[in-house]
Amino acid sequence: MIVALALLLVAVVNAQLPQPCQTPPQWQGKFIRRDESKNFTQYADISYDLVNRRVREVEYVEEGTDRDYEDVLYLHNINKEYRINLKLKNCTVSALTRPFIHFGLPPDAKYMGTANIGPVNFPDEHATVILFEGEDKQEGTFYYGEVTTPDCVPVNTGFFTNRTGYVHTSFFDITGGIPDPSVFIPPTGCTPK
Amino acid sequence: MIVALALLLVAVVNAQLPQPCQTPPQWQGKFIRRDESKNFTQYADISYDLVNRRVREVEYVEEGTDRDYEDVLYLHNINKEYRINLKLKNCTVSALTRPFIHFGLPPDAKYMGTANIGPVNFPDEHATVILFEGEDKQEGTFYYGEVTTPDCVPVNTGFFTNRTGYVHTSFFDITGGIPDPSVFIPPTGCTPK
Repeated sequence: MIVALALLLVAVVNAQLPQPCQTPPQWQGKFIRRDESKNFTQYADISYDLVNRRVREVEYVEEGTDRDYEDVLYLHNINKEYRINLKLKNCTVSALTRPFIHFGLPPDAKYMGTANIGPVNFPDEHATVILFEGEDKQEGTFYYGEVTTPDCVPVNTGFFTNRTGYVHTSFFDITGGIPDPSVFIPPTGCTPK
Repeated sequence: MIVALALLLVAVVNAQLPQPCQTPPQWQGKFIRRDESKNFTQYADISYDLVNRRVREVEYVEEGTDRDYEDVLYLHNINKEYRINLKLKNCTVSALTRPFIHFGLPPDAKYMGTANIGPVNFPDEHATVILFEGEDKQEGTFYYGEVTTPDCVPVNTGFFTNRTGYVHTSFFDITGGIPDPSVFIPPTGCTPK
């Protein structure tokens, strides 16, 4: 009886542990991505629409002394990618060059803890985040994720491989939903790549 | 007249820029400090009391393969420092070994921007932070600070010197005030250092 109760308790506690989660299906916001090993920094505005499988990223990239500005629309619903080079002021259209990237955490990610950013007893000045870690042994990748709870909006994510070192991404100014749907209108005058 | 209006406008805009701020005078919380160059990680519980000039830090430090556990009480009001080595289980008392460390930002820190952590349109799931940067040219130190607004509670701070590389500190689970004042009671049985 005691063993059964103990097992039940373990089951209940496990059931209460936060589970790996998926971010809201639609949101717009910004991120900064940094890869120390390559002296690579990317600032981007992102619009993410899992419902219609569309992503738009307006990016400013610094890699060493190179500077690049690109505005890319990934339309997975029609297998097309529009890419405007904002420096060269040209636009190309092609088949997609990357798979659809799901946000959120792999189902086997391990819950590491819960923490509060900002003062917990000051209203409107804190957010509760949950931390996950995991390993893709086949790829030799270690990854981590820090997302808000309960809605799983990304705050910090990253991964480590021996080849890349740490690649860290911080998200901010996220708005749930698609406040500006015009971002998904394909640009005109794009030539095939 | 137009020049005067323009100058007035500049003055008004400048007056609206967030200014470097000091954290609340009393708070308790946690931080993680990481110095990549030394493979140094410090996890600490901190209680900060500017009013009575007392700081308590319970620290777990990893430096390479070394592990250290220390519980330190800095009583600046009576110039005494109590240090318990939690591994060796001994306690020493001495004159203070470090100056009082003020939190917040130097008055000449430069405002870099405002950002929201977490989804802005989901209640109770975001915090607004302001970012500052600065340079101590005499010391050759570059520093940055990310604090909540309006109350200036630290979220991320750090500095860079050629000697140390980046030393980054993340704060979490901060509670304003001193919910547990017993942390400032000096331990008994400490021997002079």
